[in-house]
Amino acid sequence: MRVEDLETPVPVVELPVMERNLQRMQDYCDRHGIKLRPHIKTHKMPELARRQVELGAVGITCQKLGEAEVMADAGLDDIFISYPLIGAGKAPRLAALAKRVRMRVAVDNDLALDTVAEAAREAGTPIGVVVEFDSGNKRTGVETVEEALALAKRIAATENLRFDGLMTYPTSAETARFVAEARPRFAAEGLEIPMVTGGGSPGAMRVHEVAPIDEMRVGTYIYNDRAMLGAGAARLEDVAMVVHATVISRPAEGRAILDCGSKTLSSDLVAPEVGPGYGLLVDYPDAVITRVNEEHGTVDVSRCAVKPAIGERVRIIPNHTCVVTNLHDRVVFARDGEVVEQRPVAARGRTT
Amino acid sequence: MRVEDLETPVPVVELPVMERNLQRMQDYCDRHGIKLRPHIKTHKMPELARRQVELGAVGITCQKLGEAEVMADAGLDDIFISYPLIGAGKAPRLAALAKRVRMRVAVDNDLALDTVAEAAREAGTPIGVVVEFDSGNKRTGVETVEEALALAKRIAATENLRFDGLMTYPTSAETARFVAEARPRFAAEGLEIPMVTGGGSPGAMRVHEVAPIDEMRVGTYIYNDRAMLGAGAARLEDVAMVVHATVISRPAEGRAILDCGSKTLSSDLVAPEVGPGYGLLVDYPDAVITRVNEEHGTVDVSRCAVKPAIGERVRIIPNHTCVVTNLHDRVVFARDGEVVEQRPVAARGRTT
Repeated sequence: MRVEDLETPVPVVELPVMERNLQRMQDYCDRHGIKLRPHIKTHKMPELARRQVELGAVGITCQKLGEAEVMADAGLDDIFISYPLIGAGKAPRLAALAKRVRMRVAVDNDLALDTVAEAAREAGTPIGVVVEFDSGNKRTGVETVEEALALAKRIAATENLRFDGLMTYPTSAETARFVAEARPRFAAEGLEIPMVTGGGSPGAMRVHEVAPIDEMRVGTYIYNDRAMLGAGAARLEDVAMVVHATVISRPAEGRAILDCGSKTLSSDLVAPEVGPGYGLLVDYPDAVITRVNEEHGTVDVSRCAVKPAIGERVRIIPNHTCVVTNLHDRVVFARDGEVVEQRPVAARGRTT
Repeated sequence: MRVEDLETPVPVVELPVMERNLQRMQDYCDRHGIKLRPHIKTHKMPELARRQVELGAVGITCQKLGEAEVMADAGLDDIFISYPLIGAGKAPRLAALAKRVRMRVAVDNDLALDTVAEAAREAGTPIGVVVEFDSGNKRTGVETVEEALALAKRIAATENLRFDGLMTYPTSAETARFVAEARPRFAAEGLEIPMVTGGGSPGAMRVHEVAPIDEMRVGTYIYNDRAMLGAGAARLEDVAMVVHATVISRPAEGRAILDCGSKTLSSDLVAPEVGPGYGLLVDYPDAVITRVNEEHGTVDVSRCAVKPAIGERVRIIPNHTCVVTNLHDRVVFARDGEVVEQRPVAARGRTT
């Protein structure tokens, strides 16, 4: 079956492009002596996580326990949860995971550390802990070396916890500054920083110029998307995931309606300087998806010299590929336009 | 089990509130002699569709064939697809549905009508067709009475197609104007307009003052959300679906991080005049969810006199409840905070 014969809307991943993306990132990491620990958020599929490990990744990164559980069930055996685990149900689940695979968890506060300590006690087996610091993202992560040190000391002093180092996202100049400040301060307290793990696909291939990291967590590079194009981190031919859609209405001269909206593309935007709208129409670069409802994409085609017709199939590069994955139970994989298989997104919707 | 004992993030629907919402809308429609045909997009669950029919709905509305298939499998037997069906796979699927349940489909162009005609031929059984017109939404829908008439004439002249009337969304002053213009024009061609179907929860309880419609398609009213609050169409106590989340980090004085982001709340916003951010924190009305990543909600708590602590559970009214439903495999139903059941969102992710 050809991709053109699939019912739309449907996200399709071109395997040769994906393979090239995977290999390129592994090569980059190998060249610079950086360990690659891909984030599964983008594909949410054990088969692809295994492929990443096969190519040289040291393990994988998950955001939630539910994702780690799916991956551990599928045989992935070295998992980092880059997320503070807080809540009564978390410690038992982490303990159960730690009993069967090598686990590492990020913390940026004492309550999150309590969870890991409790899990390690329950599991009776070591769990690695890294301390997250903020390097400009202003999300999670301690803001001072002082706070990082206090957490690291507590980790080092807790039975079955192993201080694995520092984590941040993204990798920035501030990453380098923070680590440079932290090393002597940690050393003065008798603590070595075994490793620094950084992340983020857009800047991934430049990290060797930015900050000395030992491990890299990246997700989006496997498929790429419009945000990656906008960051100059991917070219059109590097985009592996494309949404195929159909024009279902042309109610006015300048307006086309697609059969995909926020249930397919999400309502994520890209930075204004990258461009307007909810995705990039590959064949109509002058068109703008000005609005998405759940099942409708409203496209302003007034600036297109040739305009898409009703019934025409169009290809859309999503603004953000990870969220497209999460919206779908299955993703189609193709080779040069020939459908190879439809794979379930096994770790889809695992929010806890 | 209490709702407080559920792992977060989790969407919870309070059954008594939902029941009240359902009854109120049915009462309104009964009072004004309007047939209610609820849109299942908001709950995507056959059990709730059946409850709506039990309370007096004449049938249901779906957006996609995949949703209609789930509902027909569950015994719903009068289904309207309010969406142009275009693409090679659509006619056979519609035919299969028409053979087992009463079907009606909306069209706004000839190619979409071809699909329904082909399906009716294949099924050998009548399919109702309504013509969609635009009443200000500028999405799908013909823009002139002329176009509507041309489609209606073709429907009336096609074997096994039944012209069921006109459809629009939302119900507006333009709805009334278009219908008033259409009636004599249709009559002059020997065509009666058997019915006008309008839609939209925000203005639902005022339609009798706005336009003479015979049938109402509404979805959001079952749960309500922040957009409904903003439209003045629901009060806080009418919001049945609330997302329970946990504060997992407080890295800076004015910043709290929640364990839910766009994978739970979506990245849908509300109209600027309703308020900023990605949801409403019920217990911290001065807080603003300024950013969502997939698993993080970044909250500006700088204006809160009392600020949420790490580990604290918070309740969020989503901006848009339909998209929250679609993101989750299961939704929890509770009665006065006591968990009654977790129901699968059977028609989740049916985009084709």
